Amino acid sequence: MSQLQNDTFLRALMRQPTEYTPMWMMRQAGRYLPEYCETRKRAGSFLQLCKSPSMACEVTLQPLARYELDAAILFSDILTVPDAMGLGLYFAEGEGPRFERPLRDEWEIRNLAAPDPHAELQYVMDAVSEIRRALDGSVPLIGFSGSPWTLACYMVEGGSSDDYRKVKTLMYSRPDLMHHILSVTTNAVIAYLNAQIEAGAQAVMVFDSWGGVLAHDAYREFSLAYLRRIAAGLIREREGRAVPSIVFTKGGGLWLEDIADAGYDAVGLDWTVDIGKARELVGHKVALQGNLDPAILFASPDAIATQTRRVLDSYGKHPGHVFNLGHGISQYTSPDHVSVLVDTVRSHSRSLRKG
Amino acid sequence: MSQLQNDTFLRALMRQPTEYTPMWMMRQAGRYLPEYCETRKRAGSFLQLCKSPSMACEVTLQPLARYELDAAILFSDILTVPDAMGLGLYFAEGEGPRFERPLRDEWEIRNLAAPDPHAELQYVMDAVSEIRRALDGSVPLIGFSGSPWTLACYMVEGGSSDDYRKVKTLMYSRPDLMHHILSVTTNAVIAYLNAQIEAGAQAVMVFDSWGGVLAHDAYREFSLAYLRRIAAGLIREREGRAVPSIVFTKGGGLWLEDIADAGYDAVGLDWTVDIGKARELVGHKVALQGNLDPAILFASPDAIATQTRRVLDSYGKHPGHVFNLGHGISQYTSPDHVSVLVDTVRSHSRSLRKG
Repeated sequence: MSQLQNDTFLRALMRQPTEYTPMWMMRQAGRYLPEYCETRKRAGSFLQLCKSPSMACEVTLQPLARYELDAAILFSDILTVPDAMGLGLYFAEGEGPRFERPLRDEWEIRNLAAPDPHAELQYVMDAVSEIRRALDGSVPLIGFSGSPWTLACYMVEGGSSDDYRKVKTLMYSRPDLMHHILSVTTNAVIAYLNAQIEAGAQAVMVFDSWGGVLAHDAYREFSLAYLRRIAAGLIREREGRAVPSIVFTKGGGLWLEDIADAGYDAVGLDWTVDIGKARELVGHKVALQGNLDPAILFASPDAIATQTRRVLDSYGKHPGHVFNLGHGISQYTSPDHVSVLVDTVRSHSRSLRKG
Repeated sequence: MSQLQNDTFLRALMRQPTEYTPMWMMRQAGRYLPEYCETRKRAGSFLQLCKSPSMACEVTLQPLARYELDAAILFSDILTVPDAMGLGLYFAEGEGPRFERPLRDEWEIRNLAAPDPHAELQYVMDAVSEIRRALDGSVPLIGFSGSPWTLACYMVEGGSSDDYRKVKTLMYSRPDLMHHILSVTTNAVIAYLNAQIEAGAQAVMVFDSWGGVLAHDAYREFSLAYLRRIAAGLIREREGRAVPSIVFTKGGGLWLEDIADAGYDAVGLDWTVDIGKARELVGHKVALQGNLDPAILFASPDAIATQTRRVLDSYGKHPGHVFNLGHGISQYTSPDHVSVLVDTVRSHSRSLRKG
């Protein structure tokens, strides 16, 4: 593997000083980029795009060709693991992900098994290797997975949900079955992330997208406990350097101190959190990633620059900040507005460190 | 007006001791009740139900006939105020509320005016008077309004939204116009709530249902500032006793201390907040209302009782707790399960106070 030319992102995750605040964007390879839409059209469907290592590699690199970003993130779907468990992932046009065989009966839950990442999920590992080669040491590659709770939401609901009625009913009526799903899924996620690291991922992130819909005590029991087990099971060093890990519970701002104790190197924040206050709470224990409201990118260039500087100023000069949006970038974002964001982060954080 | 027989709810809001923890449920007159569905069918549509004082009165009283609740809440829609401003509220089947004429152009925003609560909104005042008479002093009646930010979301988006793209674009690009909408709407809400109080509402609640989608600093500027102005403009005493006020920002747990300072007597909490810790933070300054996850009502009676006791135990014996769900009750709830909840709150809180 070639020597890494820009390791700013990895150093920031390990709370080491950097010359500027590194940045990437959740869903940076996405529909706001016309070149992404072209590749997707060529692929035929979102799922075929995910399952083709060469096309997944192509779209992963697209935002890096446009913007000075400090990390690439594997292009994939968060539901690959339950798909490999046999639930039958598909995308109904305009409706988001769905499963053909959601978990409905006790026997289906008892039959769940963690998939071998080198069997059904080999296409993901192939994508990771191909992207690593294509990046050629320019910036690090982030691997990722959905959290056990978030995966379980989809596995039980069968798709997105407004009220999480099915999964919460199961959780409150049959906590034993819920823990079984979470436990098997946790083993699957650990194996999946470690296989990504072995295939070349230089950092990993766990997306707990739906942790924030839980009651505070249910979050600890049904999401955080499993996030903790994942952190404990991850490969921590590879190719002679640390493989940092990031956890992001959307809507988890209230539980920040517990999340910061879960064993990850960094914690992602959404925009409801004041990142300066968050830093005061967690100190130097973890790095923080975030947290601009992606809706700000719909505003004028001036407003984007102002709000971006605010986030940087709020965090301040401490090491350990990775700039990101507080959620995935919207498909309606103008690519030109992203340039304003990226340029502002780079220039303002550089001068902040000098000032 | 007849003497109030059960003022437990009002006393709890004023942080006075009570013999048990009073309770009511957000959306307690709703689709989970077969008798509600019958009245609604008879009304023809949801909006006609809201606009008929006698039918609004009928459904307001339905949950009180079934359960030992300590307050009634005016049956109405949160979008009556923008409807009276001329935006043309309607309900597309299965789609939630929409406006025929959402705010799109600057001149439309500049033309906004607060409606006279005794003109276009007289039907709401008539419902309040009729419900007060029908309650005949059994329990107090709560009046309510949507918060300026929440109303503005609907007014600008034209309906519900996943990403609040239109309203956030306006807010970040033209804060002057956003503040104009909020300012006019705030005046409208103050007049609307005061007219409800004059018509007989004995407590009022402001629902900031979408405050939680804002970034922390935007929340302070575009929602909380106006909630504060409303609190300052409310009638505080009527019929020789205090008219307590409640504010509820869903997803606002992170901002609790600021919300508790906004001038209301009580703060509503959703289920992401640990109510015991919330009480430690705010002390005796405000009462707290909440905060059971309504999804718990889908579980077994045993689980419902256990989780309900947990909320009560977490708050403890201090005065100033009004039991509620952390969000409106779901239409899929079994009415029998609500009995378990109501009985548990009454019996457990009584013994908690004795113990």
